[in-house]
Amino acid sequence: MSALSLADARTIFAAAEKRAEELGQPMNIAVVDAGGNLIAHERMDGAWMGSVNISINKAWTARAFDISTKDLADNSGPGQQFFGIHTSNDGRVMIFAGGIPLKRDGEVVGGLGVSGGGGDQDQAVAEAGAEALG
Amino acid sequence: MSALSLADARTIFAAAEKRAEELGQPMNIAVVDAGGNLIAHERMDGAWMGSVNISINKAWTARAFDISTKDLADNSGPGQQFFGIHTSNDGRVMIFAGGIPLKRDGEVVGGLGVSGGGGDQDQAVAEAGAEALG
Amino acid sequence: MSALSLADARTIFAAAEKRAEELGQPMNIAVVDAGGNLIAHERMDGAWMGSVNISINKAWTARAFDISTKDLADNSGPGQQFFGIHTSNDGRVMIFAGGIPLKRDGEVVGGLGVSGGGGDQDQAVAEAGAEALG
Amino acid sequence: MSALSLADARTIFAAAEKRAEELGQPMNIAVVDAGGNLIAHERMDGAWMGSVNISINKAWTARAFDISTKDLADNSGPGQQFFGIHTSNDGRVMIFAGGIPLKRDGEVVGGLGVSGGGGDQDQAVAEAGAEALG
Repeated sequence: MSALSLADARTIFAAAEKRAEELGQPMNIAVVDAGGNLIAHERMDGAWMGSVNISINKAWTARAFDISTKDLADNSGPGQQFFGIHTSNDGRVMIFAGGIPLKRDGEVVGGLGVSGGGGDQDQAVAEAGAEALG
Repeated sequence: MSALSLADARTIFAAAEKRAEELGQPMNIAVVDAGGNLIAHERMDGAWMGSVNISINKAWTARAFDISTKDLADNSGPGQQFFGIHTSNDGRVMIFAGGIPLKRDGEVVGGLGVSGGGGDQDQAVAEAGAEALG
Repeated sequence: MSALSLADARTIFAAAEKRAEELGQPMNIAVVDAGGNLIAHERMDGAWMGSVNISINKAWTARAFDISTKDLADNSGPGQQFFGIHTSNDGRVMIFAGGIPLKRDGEVVGGLGVSGGGGDQDQAVAEAGAEALG
Repeated sequence: MSALSLADARTIFAAAEKRAEELGQPMNIAVVDAGGNLIAHERMDGAWMGSVNISINKAWTARAFDISTKDLADNSGPGQQFFGIHTSNDGRVMIFAGGIPLKRDGEVVGGLGVSGGGGDQDQAVAEAGAEALG
């Protein structure tokens, strides 16, 4: 039984939040299930309200294409093979760092999205969260 | 200082979740701030995925008009003064029970939305959550 | 292993199409997976183009709330507990007959949507398709 | 009588699917009619769910401008004559490879869209499908 639970999402949130606090940057954090549907979202106090949508969509994107949004970004700029993908799917495809597929036993079971700081910060917080899934 | 915090949302979630478990009906629960922007959402294991959106929009609606969605429903049916309001705001206005304005010291500071069961269940869980804000 | 496959969708299409031909009414038929994401859609020759969207959304709705859209309709009219649900989820919720949750071993594994005729016809074709899943 | 039929779409699917299997890359494949309206879509087992929308929109784009999305891409990057076209039409215009106009007797009768791999893979599968129309 590999489906993500709400308890899994909270485990991820705790680890991501800890990393965000270390960085001193409040974040929006979102977890979606294998179907791309939201399990949970939280906005840390003081985090950007414009990042609510971005965190949820980064989580969705990472699952929709089973790739980190950081890696997707490397193929989606002008002149690259997927340039333009960011306007597909009604604008839900995020092509900058902070979204990571969530795996268990080597299988993708969902996605995690983080938004609230610079690209490196979002990515670091997402990685901390994804590692917590174990 | 009356702004809702993520900690407040978690307090509300805990109380709402407890009531949902008593009713044996898993729910989606969402809290928005005074600006109608999402602070946090959670989908209890087994709750309808179609209710993710509804819970968030019930919370938004309750704050947007400072009224419970149950009371709004009583004014929004065919022949009533607000009939048609449910297609305004890009379809975000929910006109059935489960959304409640969140108050502190008599002032509206946000909204709570619950979706996942019948109207009476959603309302009961939302009331339990709102009362926890204290 | 209970996930729906493309082969499953084709089995469903064949049975639904056979029933549609018996009724002399061409249909749009759509199958979504457990996450509500489209597996396959087909429009029979001569079927309404406006029903492409409706068939896909009926399939989504049936899975999103684990209920047939016919039964959902009975709770979503004026004065009923879910009146207004049809404008939630960006207008994807269909509240008339033709959408059925797809089950295997008692578990909901997806949704089927049919659109192209009267409500009774859509429902009959959807039931024929759902039964074929076995 | 040149209108595309559902049978034509299936012929195209079979050829495209065969090519996708040779490449070892599962794909989403979609066919639209002369009006740009979906005739049929299929997602091969294991193909990206984020590519459902993209395949349908590549098919639409190829018919909407009677050009392959690969050729459109060559005119739609920064500094080029159509830069920005990807945000027109509510985000339906896809400007990367995989969409091809479908012709019969020299006349455009619809569009084919493929999404699920790299740009070269999508294009190769689309070409195999288009050739099957004969």
